[in-house]
Amino acid sequence: MNRPAINPAASRATARAAMSASEYVQGILSADRTVLGRAITLLESTLPADQALAREVLSCCQPHSEKALRIAVTGAPGVGKSSLIETLGCALVARGKRLAVLTTDPTSIRTAGSILGDKTRMPRLAAHDQAFIRPSPSAGAWGGITSATRPAMLLCEAAGFDIALVETVGVGQSAVAARDVADIVLLLVSASAGDELQAVKRGIIETADIIAVAKADGHAVPQAQETLRAYRRALGLYPPGPSGIRARVLTCSAVTGDGISKVWEAAEAYHKAATANEYFERNRRHQVHLEVRRTAEQALRTDFLADPAVATRLAALQEAAACGTLTPWDASQELIKLYRSS
Amino acid sequence: MNRPAINPAASRATARAAMSASEYVQGILSADRTVLGRAITLLESTLPADQALAREVLSCCQPHSEKALRIAVTGAPGVGKSSLIETLGCALVARGKRLAVLTTDPTSIRTAGSILGDKTRMPRLAAHDQAFIRPSPSAGAWGGITSATRPAMLLCEAAGFDIALVETVGVGQSAVAARDVADIVLLLVSASAGDELQAVKRGIIETADIIAVAKADGHAVPQAQETLRAYRRALGLYPPGPSGIRARVLTCSAVTGDGISKVWEAAEAYHKAATANEYFERNRRHQVHLEVRRTAEQALRTDFLADPAVATRLAALQEAAACGTLTPWDASQELIKLYRSS
Repeated sequence: MNRPAINPAASRATARAAMSASEYVQGILSADRTVLGRAITLLESTLPADQALAREVLSCCQPHSEKALRIAVTGAPGVGKSSLIETLGCALVARGKRLAVLTTDPTSIRTAGSILGDKTRMPRLAAHDQAFIRPSPSAGAWGGITSATRPAMLLCEAAGFDIALVETVGVGQSAVAARDVADIVLLLVSASAGDELQAVKRGIIETADIIAVAKADGHAVPQAQETLRAYRRALGLYPPGPSGIRARVLTCSAVTGDGISKVWEAAEAYHKAATANEYFERNRRHQVHLEVRRTAEQALRTDFLADPAVATRLAALQEAAACGTLTPWDASQELIKLYRSS
Repeated sequence: MNRPAINPAASRATARAAMSASEYVQGILSADRTVLGRAITLLESTLPADQALAREVLSCCQPHSEKALRIAVTGAPGVGKSSLIETLGCALVARGKRLAVLTTDPTSIRTAGSILGDKTRMPRLAAHDQAFIRPSPSAGAWGGITSATRPAMLLCEAAGFDIALVETVGVGQSAVAARDVADIVLLLVSASAGDELQAVKRGIIETADIIAVAKADGHAVPQAQETLRAYRRALGLYPPGPSGIRARVLTCSAVTGDGISKVWEAAEAYHKAATANEYFERNRRHQVHLEVRRTAEQALRTDFLADPAVATRLAALQEAAACGTLTPWDASQELIKLYRSS
């Protein structure tokens, strides 16, 4: 007995089409978490119909956004970002804050693997009504910041969350990507032994507004203190970044809770200082400028690859380059010529 | 007394124009290191005249390349990549190999800081006639892999180097970028304590062909052995990657030299196995396919931003989006329309 194969993409699109843009918007504005989650899935979708719907939803939600404080938590894998977010998140919820957490799971970059386990990585926080935790696959994205991250934050803000927290994985460049979507970048580092401290690189620390040495508990406290001093020394060598505000360095422990309130105080102090010197607003405007350019470049790329003339010739030109009969440059020039004349 | 201001870009272009493409090619093919260094600088230049010259040089050198083994050394900052490269490099030179090392310095991502110190980070290797060390700024690039990395490797190969080694900074995604330019990806990891080992993530290990636990010397040996076992266990949970060859895990020390020859043996074993099952050749062809697409996308982006109609409207549309009178999406669509109709 032959049954027609189910096209998962098509069935997903159909399931979503059951909800209109205004239904999405209404759900988001009334803080319906299920609708918010589905809207973020829509943002992440690569289906053209989903994208069109997502843009409509975004346009309607945008006037209701821009109100939350956006914090990126960045740091190398294993440094304890999830634990910090959970402990900090619970403390914020206890202060009456509503918190949206966008986490990424680098479980499998190559195979775009499942995203199991992210909610369970923060069980205490996930149990709170005032917290919304949204894991997203980080497939193909640098450090977990994707083109959907900023729009997802905007939707969370429209749903009334006071704080939007983004977890990004990695070091260096992904902290730079974090800076492009967040108001405050919190860099989590491990307590390190002497020779590893030489690796305190300018590029890494200068992207952070707050540097927290994690896991400062028990017998690790002295090493954490040493690390804190090393970072303070390193920071002292450079002028403050474009915000004009010198980064704060502190130690904390997600286990004992020590220093966690200091992390939040540092974030509030940064927010206050950046608002006072107008960097906060300037940075947000700059982020929109970047987003226009990035969105245009991405849409152009999509348009280019979807162009019938380009799509028809691409494989043949790639093969010619692989055989050495054409340089990759000449092959790419021919593709661009095709695109521009079509 | 008024003297005309010197335009550094123009004077650099003039200085370079003093050498023709054929002079570059001749210098490279006769293994002139100064010319090779200048040619790589040319590849990294964003000046249109330099780019045109670089493409000509590349086209002529391409038939003489494709002969070296390309190895990417990746790992988090501070893990000891430079030390490993120096010790491994000296061992390879001692075996009669000619080795080109392309290193990156993430000193300052934001300020595109100087690249001092890279050569001196490998003083023993730099002293060898058979080794060529080329530091490049990693500004704006993910983990140090730039669009100039692959062409620079090709030039080194045309200059007769047997092994082209690229150092990339970071974890996860930059290892993926490394995979796009290298035949073999060597991931360097630190010996970690129990709870950090939980962070052995599939996405990180599955991009590596060889995993070396660094700094396995003195009292760190037991922890390095524990880390080795953890990685082996983690690898055992997954099928081998697209190469069909299971990654090897080993320990090494750049200080004592222990395990360094094992690293090279693992690279040779991988090379042999990948050649035998034809993945080696398939991967190289795949890399050229990727390069054609990447080059085209990049050239398209440059063309887009240089388009007079786009350049004229960009700032106004960005400002409109920042004021909220237009969504970033609508602003970007208008830019693309302008580009396509110009």
